[in-house]
Formats: sequence, C-alpha cells, structure tokens
Amino acid sequence: MLENLKQSVLDANLALPKHNLVTFTWGNVSGINRERNLVVIKPSGVSYEELSRDDMAVVDLEGDVVEGDLNPSSDTPTHIVLYKNFKEIGGVVHTHAPWSTSWAQAGKDIPALGTTHADYFYGGIPCTRSMKDIEINGSYEHETGNVIVETLQDINPLQMPGVLVNSHAPFTWGKDPSEAVHNAVVLEEVAKMALQTYQLNPAISDIDQALLDKHYLRKHGSKAYYGQKK
Amino acid sequence: MLENLKQSVLDANLALPKHNLVTFTWGNVSGINRERNLVVIKPSGVSYEELSRDDMAVVDLEGDVVEGDLNPSSDTPTHIVLYKNFKEIGGVVHTHAPWSTSWAQAGKDIPALGTTHADYFYGGIPCTRSMKDIEINGSYEHETGNVIVETLQDINPLQMPGVLVNSHAPFTWGKDPSEAVHNAVVLEEVAKMALQTYQLNPAISDIDQALLDKHYLRKHGSKAYYGQKK
Amino acid sequence: MLENLKQSVLDANLALPKHNLVTFTWGNVSGINRERNLVVIKPSGVSYEELSRDDMAVVDLEGDVVEGDLNPSSDTPTHIVLYKNFKEIGGVVHTHAPWSTSWAQAGKDIPALGTTHADYFYGGIPCTRSMKDIEINGSYEHETGNVIVETLQDINPLQMPGVLVNSHAPFTWGKDPSEAVHNAVVLEEVAKMALQTYQLNPAISDIDQALLDKHYLRKHGSKAYYGQKK
Amino acid sequence: MLENLKQSVLDANLALPKHNLVTFTWGNVSGINRERNLVVIKPSGVSYEELSRDDMAVVDLEGDVVEGDLNPSSDTPTHIVLYKNFKEIGGVVHTHAPWSTSWAQAGKDIPALGTTHADYFYGGIPCTRSMKDIEINGSYEHETGNVIVETLQDINPLQMPGVLVNSHAPFTWGKDPSEAVHNAVVLEEVAKMALQTYQLNPAISDIDQALLDKHYLRKHGSKAYYGQKK
Repeated sequence: MLENLKQSVLDANLALPKHNLVTFTWGNVSGINRERNLVVIKPSGVSYEELSRDDMAVVDLEGDVVEGDLNPSSDTPTHIVLYKNFKEIGGVVHTHAPWSTSWAQAGKDIPALGTTHADYFYGGIPCTRSMKDIEINGSYEHETGNVIVETLQDINPLQMPGVLVNSHAPFTWGKDPSEAVHNAVVLEEVAKMALQTYQLNPAISDIDQALLDKHYLRKHGSKAYYGQKK
Repeated sequence: MLENLKQSVLDANLALPKHNLVTFTWGNVSGINRERNLVVIKPSGVSYEELSRDDMAVVDLEGDVVEGDLNPSSDTPTHIVLYKNFKEIGGVVHTHAPWSTSWAQAGKDIPALGTTHADYFYGGIPCTRSMKDIEINGSYEHETGNVIVETLQDINPLQMPGVLVNSHAPFTWGKDPSEAVHNAVVLEEVAKMALQTYQLNPAISDIDQALLDKHYLRKHGSKAYYGQKK
Repeated sequence: MLENLKQSVLDANLALPKHNLVTFTWGNVSGINRERNLVVIKPSGVSYEELSRDDMAVVDLEGDVVEGDLNPSSDTPTHIVLYKNFKEIGGVVHTHAPWSTSWAQAGKDIPALGTTHADYFYGGIPCTRSMKDIEINGSYEHETGNVIVETLQDINPLQMPGVLVNSHAPFTWGKDPSEAVHNAVVLEEVAKMALQTYQLNPAISDIDQALLDKHYLRKHGSKAYYGQKK
Repeated sequence: MLENLKQSVLDANLALPKHNLVTFTWGNVSGINRERNLVVIKPSGVSYEELSRDDMAVVDLEGDVVEGDLNPSSDTPTHIVLYKNFKEIGGVVHTHAPWSTSWAQAGKDIPALGTTHADYFYGGIPCTRSMKDIEINGSYEHETGNVIVETLQDINPLQMPGVLVNSHAPFTWGKDPSEAVHNAVVLEEVAKMALQTYQLNPAISDIDQALLDKHYLRKHGSKAYYGQKK
C-alpha cells in the first residue's frame, strides 16, 4: 500500500547523500498520507546504498508499525509529533549536516543575514532550548518533537520550515518529502554562509525587514512572481 | 532568432553548476546582442538539468518578452540596467556562491590582498550601500541595478567586472557570457582566500599599488604579455 | 594464510581514500587474528591505487614479519602496542585526516558537544601528552603506542574508540578493521563540527550528561534500540 | 627532443587539477635537463584540458625559446632563477592553491606544527619579504626568483622544498617535476591544517625539535626507514 508515497520517501532519502547532507546513515526522511493518517519513513540504520522501496516502514500516528519488516527510524516519534502539530506539512527530514549541526551544537538561532535565507525562511531559524533530564530520560524522541513544537508555538511552520534541536541537529519539513529535503539543503547552505558572514563582520545586524519581506514574498504566497506559473 | 547567443547563454548557465557556483536554481546568466538591443537570459526557476537552448527567454531593453514561452529570470531588470549603463559589456552573471555571498552579507568590500585578485580586478571589489525601503518596495530588481551603477560610478566596469550587492549576493560581467562566468569563478576564489587571509592576519594591508598594476596590466590592456597572441 | 583477514584489511585500507581521509599514503589500517596472535597491516609507503591483497604484511606481536615481501607500515609497533593492551579490539586505523589532525596539532581534547559525538564516543576524545625527547629518540613508534595506552588508562577503549596523538594525528580502533575505519570517519566529522561550534560560541559547554548517556546507550550496549536486530 | 622530459612535465601539469591545486590556468610545472641546460615548461594561458606533449615549450637558461610554437609560461624567468641557484632540483611548480596562497597573502611563514609538516619540510616554510617597487617594475618574474633565493639563502632547498611569495602564492620544487607536484600537494594540506590549528589554539608553539628531526629523518636521508627499499 501507499506505493507512491513510499517511492517519494525513498527518492527523498536517496537525495540526502546526493546533496552531501549525510554521513553513513545519519539522516531520515518521512512522508504522511493525511487521509489515512499513515507515515512512511526510512528504516533505522540501513545504508542508503541498500535502500529499496519495499524497505520503507509504514507506521500509524501511535507509532505502531502497520507494514514493513524493518524497524522504522529511531526518530519516528519526533516525526509523528511534528505531523500531529503542523497540520499543513507532508514531509519531514532529519540530518546531522555539518554546518547546521554546528549551529545546533552552539545553541544559537541562525539569524537572517541575507536574501538567500529570506527566500526560504521568514526570519531567524530558531534553536530549541536544552532538553531537561526528565525529557531525555523519558520518551526522548517524542519529547524532541515536543520541544520543537514549543519552539515554533508562535511561528507559522510553513513560513519557518526548519529548526535546530539544541546540542543535536536540524529538522526541516515541507508540503511533501521532496520539499522537506529542499529546505534541508537550503538550511545547510544558509548555516555555512551565516558562520562565514560573522567571521567577516561580528557586528553585522539582521537583514532589513523590507528586504526580508520582499524576498520571502517574491517566492511565496499569492503575490509570488519567481519561477513559472504551474 | 539569436541562436548563437542563445547557445552561448545556455553554455554559460550550464557552466555555473560545473564550477560549483550554484545550489538549485540560484543563479542566472544573460547575454546581449548590441545591434538589436535584445537580451537572452535564463528562464526563472528552471533547473539546470532541464535547461535547453529553446528555453532561453529573449527580452528587449524595456524588459518585454520578445520570444520564448517561459518567464525570464526575476532578476532580468537588474541585468538590463547593467547593459544600459555599462556599454562595453556583453554578458552578466548573478549567483549566490557562498564565499562571495558571505562578503555581501557582511556588507564589506573585498580588498585586493594578492596577485590572484590583481590578475582580474583592478582594486577592491565594492559592496553596494544598503538599499532603502522605498527602493525595495518599488521596482526592486530595477533598483538593484541602479544601486550597482551608483557603486561603480567612478570605476571602469571593464576593470572592475563584479560587485557585491549588500545583504544579497554578487553580480559579475564581461565582454560575453563566458567571460562573465569566468569572472564569477575568480570572484568566488578571491572571496575565499581573502577571508582566510584575514583569519591569519587581521591587520594585513592591501596589496602594494605597483604589484596591483603589474599583475593587472600583465593580463589586460595593450601591454599584456600573459597567454598566447590571438 | 589469513586470506579473509587480509581481504578485510585491504578493503578497510581502500575505504580510507573513499572517505577522503588520506592524502597520498598517509594512513594505514591493520587487523588482528587473536587466535594466532598475528597482525595483518598495510605495507609502508605503497599507494592505495596499487594495493592488492597479497601486498598485505603479516607480523607477529614482536613485530617480526611472518609473511609478505614488503615492509610493513612504519607505524606497525604502535598498532601492536594497542592490540596488546586493548584486548577487545580487532582493527586499528591511523590517518592524518585534516580536521582531526588540526586538533592533535593544537594539543586539545575534542569535547563532546553534541549527539553526533555522543553516538560513538562516550565523552571527550583525549589528546595525549607531548612525548618526551627520550621517547622520540628511542623506539618512537612503540612509545607512541605507550603514550596512547597511558592516555586511555582509566577509559574503556571500546567506549572511546579513538585518540589524538599530540603534534601528530589520530588513531582509531574497533572490533574489526571496518569498524575502526567507521570510527575514523566519525572522528573527522566530529572534529570539523566541534571547531565550527567553537567559532560560533567560544563559551559553549559540553553536552549534558543525560543526553550523552542517552545517545551513546541508544546505539551501544544491551539496551541499544538503534538499527535492526541482527 | 627531450620527449621523456616533455612527457613528465605534461604529466606533472595534468596532476595539478587532479589534486585540486588550480583554477583555470593558474599553475605551471617545469622540468630541467641538467646535461643540456634546457628547461621544459607549460605554455602560457593554455587550459589543462587542451594541453598535449607537443605544446610544451623548451627554453634555455637565458629564457630564449629553443623549441615550441607557444609562448612559455610568463613565470618562466622565476623557474630559471631557481634552477640556476638550486643545483640539485629537477622540477619546479607554481600554483595559486587557496590555503597556501592565503598564507602568502597574509605575509606569514607556515610554522611546523605537526608531523605531517615535518615529514616533508624541515622547519617553518618561509614567506619572502615584500618586493620593492623597483623590482616589480623591473624584470618582475626574474626578481621574483631572486627574492625566493634570498629567502632560502641559509636553507638547504632540498630540505625546504617550497616557499611562499609575499602577496602572491607558493612555489615548490623537487628532484623532478613529479616530486615538485607532490610537495605542492603537501604544502596545501599543511597550510590548511596550520590555519585550523591556530583557530583552535592561537598560542600553540612549534613542534618539538626532536619530533621534527625524527619525522623528517624517518623519510629522508641515509637513515630513512619509511617505505620500501628501491
């Protein structure tokens, strides 16, 4: 079942190494079928070279495996929390991509410093608070999702399609698995340039609000004029 | 029409990913036919893998599409301002290449620190002033061209074939699309080395004027002696 | 003899350039047969392109060549000291991979700053003390092994499968040659991200102990739940 | 004539892009036939993709072209000064490789910080003084050679097979063109790691003299024991 979704989740997983976002198996992509409330996700610890469509795990929103012989990603509970709380999203990506992860390890938001950032993320990309020991020692991956949702509580997740989990690494999302990967690539590029920008000018301030608006709205929303009409 | 120019603009666009200057569709190259005052430019938001010669958009100097089914790059008005003001140039490139863009985001000129820089750019590569809200909220891409022209007002654009747009990214140009790409590659390399040079020696001063002259004039102008006679 | 071990040592050596861990011949991998107390190791100064299974050198725990026409790696005595002291390990890797080596040259431990680190190394990755002149001028490679063992004296080498040799470069190990290479790749990635993390936040403190425990034990030990049951 | 030398000079030139040491045509390799006092060198400004054995220029020690239809590299006079003064060398390389060039632009020697450096360069790699205007405006490329020779005046060029030319870029050399390229690769790697080492520990001191001696002499001279007997 869900063969189309499995294929798109497989394709999105295979895009991670193509974009140099993963070392070994350090990443996973999922997609959701909103009508059936079923999530398709990469199996845990399987290398990208060996991955086939039939390896994809299907789980329900309780996290129970509905189809597939392999364990789903250990991060599955995090994905599920995001799908439950961000109703408009259709795909989620987790990686340990190095530039994004360096910001997560530093415990810092990535400020919007230029138009590349503004083209995709409508403001600074937030880093979560540190998780508490009780959260870590409890349902850790579920609580990871909760702390992401808490961080985005006053933010539209479609306008801010990514987050840094403190001391850990990034999660991104989008309307489908492919767009979630796209946003993961952008986040990594933006993270790299933001670090380099600070090295050149530690006192730089955030992008002008008018320029942030201009670039974000040039690509998103009803008045977008970038690209081709579809 | 303009099949030769379309081919050279296509080739120049395809050279951007080969030189690792673009992520996704973040770049565009145009070329101009000066006799007919027509500009050929990459269509907006089309991936480089799918790009064919017939996809190239042809616009006049008012920005009106003369041929082609696809929307031209959203940056077309910027290219047109450059062609109108820099009469000797035949090709323009815009990228978000990461090292150059980091300098643009930092709002800093790239100083001439060595002979690699001096071989192509006759002095520090300027960064524009920040654009005003009225410019951003008006004809934004047109005003982007204007602020570039303002920045180069006392500089010969053939001796300074590139600029950093503040909070945004670089533009380069040349006598044709291929040379404009060549200069984009050099700018990125020079931007990287300048950042690293400052990390090693924050107090370094600009290259000696005699050495700047020597290297620039060794490659450019009537007394050039680099390369083969043509 | 030891054809299987030779093949796995060859494969592990060839994995080093694939993972961009070596320049020229700057790296070597060995494996041990614990029943026969024989070590198979890369020959000294032979390029990876030319390496075949029959080139692998076989030495005993005195360092004497038992089979093979080529000199074993000049670092063989270091490997032997590690095998003698760390009874549970089956493979050893030495590289001059640039990020790891930069930490070794800086004479600093790599602190555990995030979950990527915690997934593989149970705490900060130690850097040895500087070697004394008498050690350098004596049996240098043997003493290099001794200073590693001294550094790990209160640490379980299976929970800390790597070390930085001061002013020199990293060694890693694992239950077999393949796992030792895996750990060398992780060390390099962790070294890169730790440097970048400090550039972003020089005051960052080590990862929370609960999070270190959680991630290390999620992948290692009897309660591990990452990956597939084997 | 000199077909073997032409082939080895061609091969050495083609090795530069393979090792990511050059952008466009920013590099050249030469070799010398000491019996006939003839130097074979890359032609000026010809791309590596187009280069063939017959394109190699042959010049005498006055710099006059003896064979070949193409202009020799504009840096030929620098190479000749090195061959005249460093009698034991057989090949010379010039590149603008980015990490080495960053040190040259910073006007700083690369200190010996670890064993990777010590394996090839017996001490800090010197940066020349700035050239005087009279030297720059005179026989510039010839004077570039002179300032290199001046910098190495108390140093054995076989023990220090490279130099940084201030505000410019590196030159390396060796017993033949291939070894000169080898040393250019090592210099670039060492330059990268030295910068990163300083970022981690700005107060780091140079490698211990005993360790420098040990590693250099392990690979060089009559007591070398690295590699295979030849």
